[in-house]
Order: sequence, then C-alpha cells, then structure tokens
Amino acid sequence: MVEVTPPRRGRGRRPAAEVRAGVLRAATGLLLGEGIKAVTFDRVAAAAGSSKMTLYKWWPSAGALAAEAYFTHSEQQLEFPDTGDIRADLTTQLRAFVRLLTGGGAGPAIAGLIGVAQTDPELSAAFSRYYSAPRRALAMAAVHRARDRGQLRDDIDLGILVDQLWGACYHRLLIPDAPLTEEYATALVDNALDGARPRDTAPPGRHSH
Amino acid sequence: MVEVTPPRRGRGRRPAAEVRAGVLRAATGLLLGEGIKAVTFDRVAAAAGSSKMTLYKWWPSAGALAAEAYFTHSEQQLEFPDTGDIRADLTTQLRAFVRLLTGGGAGPAIAGLIGVAQTDPELSAAFSRYYSAPRRALAMAAVHRARDRGQLRDDIDLGILVDQLWGACYHRLLIPDAPLTEEYATALVDNALDGARPRDTAPPGRHSH
Repeated sequence: MVEVTPPRRGRGRRPAAEVRAGVLRAATGLLLGEGIKAVTFDRVAAAAGSSKMTLYKWWPSAGALAAEAYFTHSEQQLEFPDTGDIRADLTTQLRAFVRLLTGGGAGPAIAGLIGVAQTDPELSAAFSRYYSAPRRALAMAAVHRARDRGQLRDDIDLGILVDQLWGACYHRLLIPDAPLTEEYATALVDNALDGARPRDTAPPGRHSH
Repeated sequence: MVEVTPPRRGRGRRPAAEVRAGVLRAATGLLLGEGIKAVTFDRVAAAAGSSKMTLYKWWPSAGALAAEAYFTHSEQQLEFPDTGDIRADLTTQLRAFVRLLTGGGAGPAIAGLIGVAQTDPELSAAFSRYYSAPRRALAMAAVHRARDRGQLRDDIDLGILVDQLWGACYHRLLIPDAPLTEEYATALVDNALDGARPRDTAPPGRHSH
C-alpha cells in the first residue's frame, strides 16, 4: 500500500510534518493574498488538500493558525545586525521593518493579525509566542549590548526605547493618520537617541552628565 | 396624533436627535460592557428600542457606529493641559491616557475598535475622523506651542514625538508583551525628551547645540 511518489491527494498518508508544512503554506498564501479574513479552517483545508479535522486537531483557532503561518514565513527575517554601532544597527533594523510593513502583503497581514488578536485570545497568545515576544527579545538584547558598550544611558528602561522605535512604527501601521516611510524610521532612531529637548537645556531636577 | 409625553416605544415619533443619542448610548453600553463583537446592528437596535433600518440608514457599518459611540462617550476627556511646561503637560496627559486605557472598559473598547478597523474600512475612517485624528491634532498643537517656547528642538519632526509617546502606549495596549502603567507614561516622556544616548556623547556627524 506504500506509494513511492508523494500522493498529492492521499490524505492521511503524507507524514504529519509534511501535511503541517502544507497547511502553513496554504494559510500564508491566503493571509498575504487576501487578508486575515480569508484564513478560515474551511478555506485553508481546501487550499492545502487537508481535512478540516486535522486543522481543528492542531490549531485552537484559525487565527492561531494564521499567526503561526505568518511566523514560519517571516522567520528568516529575524536576524538583528550587530556592528557595534547601535545607531546604525537600529536604523538598519527599523528601515528593514518599515520596508517589510509597506512593501507588500506583510503590512496588511501583520495589521490583520494584531487586529483579530484584540478579540481572539488564541491568536493573541500565538502572535506573542511566535512573533512579537521573540522579536522584542532580540531588540532588547541589542540595546542591552549597546548599554554595556556605553552607547545608551544606564538609567533608562530599555523596554521603553523598544516601544519608542517599533511601537511608533506599529502606531502608523495600525492608526494610519500619518505616513510610514524609511526616512521616518531613520528619524525615529535619531529622536529616540538624541531626545526632543534642546541639548543646551538641563532636565529639571537632575544633573546632565 | 401628536403625543405630549415622549413615547418610549413610539418609533418614528421621537425627534431624530433623540433617537440618535439613544442609539449611541446603547452602542457605548454594549462596547464598554461586552466588547466590540457585541456591537451589531441587531443588538444595538434592540437595546435602543430603534429599528434596524434606522441604523442602516445612519451608519455604514456597525463598526462605524461603535467608533462614533465611543467618541461621543469620551469627548469630554479631550482637553489638553497647557501650563507652559511641556514635560509636565505631556506627563499629565499621558498618565491620564494610561489611566483611561487600564482603568476599566475603555482600554478593551479602544483595542477592539482598532482591531476591527484593520479589516473594516468604514470603522477605520470613523475612528480616524472622530477619535484619533482630532487627538493627534491636539497633541501636535501642544508640542508646536512648546517648540515656539524653545522647549523642544527646532530640527525634529514633532509628529515622531507624538508617535513615541502615544504610539508607545498603544503598542503595549495592542501587543501586550510588557506592562502599561502610569510610571511607564512618566518614563516615556522623560525618555523622549532627554534621549537614550548618554549626554556626554555627541551625535555622529552633527554638532550638539
């Protein structure tokens, strides 16, 4: 009964890992091509040639499947440059992030995932586990290294810096009252590092050092 | 045929403004009490004692109705303090914003509105028109006044500063990988004004002034 060529329609015969990869590919295609609303168990099962029961067994919601699919698709873009110059590294990384968000289907896909996550706890958990938390950890590691090198102040909460860079981009993606561009990314980094206060004024109640 | 006491069930007899106000109150109640998914034309019409046809006539989508309802509810919180000290005013405003987002139903309501806005263009437009754009304009006016007073640098894009304050809060609301607190709001303002770079290091390729 074992077939030599991989049977395209032989449900239940393909190794689970292969079926899983096919489902994730199908979900990614629907997410990037038509948006988060197209990622339903019905449509993914049809596109992947898998049974809906398999999908129900593996994912708690279609949203959770969409999040894992997107993560699998974007995993290769996770690396964070480390040249030893935090301004240059943050600028490179933020510009690449803005290119990703504005260059094709990824921006609407991420916006759709975050959007549905607001009312789908399964998707919210998957988005955090597979996408946002690991990315936040990489950014935190980069700014901690920079602080160890003396390029960032000792007395600030580095998590805030991460929000003021990536969060600012998400703000323009999700509430598009102002444009999101690569020049914006560069200016974001400069603003966060240099501060909005004129350099010749001292912060109130503190000594500049 | 004209009745003297306002008929609670006399559909079509109440003045349009009164019906409209009742619908918005009902939508706000559902949004704050049960979340964005509860704001459907069916449920709002039932709660307001209005006809669904009226709602269809006045709002292009239930999402657009939810956005206008939320705006009407939160309008009184629009004022922006102007004491002449931008650090104090931003801190007051941001802490109040965080209190609003974390103190009750408003945070989930705003998160739900932004969430649905990602796939509902009518809601997205209403959210911008009634809520986010006017608030952004108030924040922009405040930072422009501060720049005119010499409290902010001449050479930065003030729209970025707004994203690095409010956008950072939205980031923690919508992608809750880190906590959103009033202390966070204070630290956000200090970070944005003072910058993350040690004060004794000069920005590359520029003169500090």
